[in-house]
Amino acid sequence: MAGPVLDFWFDFASTYSYLAAMRIGLLGEQAAVRVRFRPFLLGPIFKAQDWITSPFNLYPAKGRHMWRDLERQCAELALSFRRPDPFPQNSLLAARVALVGLDQAWGKDFCLAVFRSEFGKGRSIESRAAIGDVLAELSIDAAPALEAARSDAIKTRLRAQTDEAQRLGLFGAPSFTTTDGELFWGNDRLEQALRWQKRIANGE
Amino acid sequence: MAGPVLDFWFDFASTYSYLAAMRIGLLGEQAAVRVRFRPFLLGPIFKAQDWITSPFNLYPAKGRHMWRDLERQCAELALSFRRPDPFPQNSLLAARVALVGLDQAWGKDFCLAVFRSEFGKGRSIESRAAIGDVLAELSIDAAPALEAARSDAIKTRLRAQTDEAQRLGLFGAPSFTTTDGELFWGNDRLEQALRWQKRIANGE
Repeated sequence: MAGPVLDFWFDFASTYSYLAAMRIGLLGEQAAVRVRFRPFLLGPIFKAQDWITSPFNLYPAKGRHMWRDLERQCAELALSFRRPDPFPQNSLLAARVALVGLDQAWGKDFCLAVFRSEFGKGRSIESRAAIGDVLAELSIDAAPALEAARSDAIKTRLRAQTDEAQRLGLFGAPSFTTTDGELFWGNDRLEQALRWQKRIANGE
Repeated sequence: MAGPVLDFWFDFASTYSYLAAMRIGLLGEQAAVRVRFRPFLLGPIFKAQDWITSPFNLYPAKGRHMWRDLERQCAELALSFRRPDPFPQNSLLAARVALVGLDQAWGKDFCLAVFRSEFGKGRSIESRAAIGDVLAELSIDAAPALEAARSDAIKTRLRAQTDEAQRLGLFGAPSFTTTDGELFWGNDRLEQALRWQKRIANGE
């Protein structure tokens, strides 16, 4: 596909991925940079660092700040925010269904709807019923999407995507990678990543 | 002192504290918020989390990103950058001398000069000779400053400041605390912290 492309790596369990997902559509348009959605799983990457859960749970002071920071950021962005319980949510099913959707027309809408349900409304995203509700809201036929998400092809794709994330040096989400191999970590780097990708695409 | 005041907590060993220190003067003026410099030591706080060195050393992927991110940020801010070796530097002496200076007229200038020497030029800040050089550049008489830094009063003050940081929930640097008890972590939150402090000082 022509024009600059930025890869947007996210895990549906990640709080700051919610903020990035809500912002990236408009910012990408303004920068004239196409954004490719790359759902992956942080779990295996955290395990490689000997973290058995989110660092926000492992380090309570860091976790307290993150929740308050998220409230303040959402207030400034006029985004609703409600903390899901438990945190982090198991994001495996959502990621598999997202891969199904990203091969079709509804992938990005589904990703945004999952994030809104989880962090805007505080709902669980773990079960087939919960993901089915999200699909229904978007008028997508849930049964074939959920069925495709269980296929070996999709399971393999998600593992490959997570392996690729690790190979690219990702250690958290959201992250952004450019076509010249730069890695930007965190919602706070979204604007800079878009500027970078645009500049290299323009041959500057 | 009248008017809004934001507390700026930093450790001289911290890379992102360098960026915040270089930016906070102008941004504080623009926001009409007075900034109080609060050097402290991250070491005891990291130890409480079972980290024996910087998390950027403990987690190599995170560290690789940090150094590259810092290069990119410094380029955008037109700040020189050179990595000190070893990293992190032992910041004990610099913090003690800073406390001496902050009781006098040269505290903030000294803090900025230490950061510039360490991360702008990649120099060590660990020894009395190194800190003496920084003082000399500022035309400050080094001997009495270094002598005062060894006093029990200053040692106790630095311990108390570090205890206070921990009590306020700090887990990293730079951090900013407002007079109504908000904690903002990271150079990326400097602008928001200044806005917050200004708003509450205006009774909004």
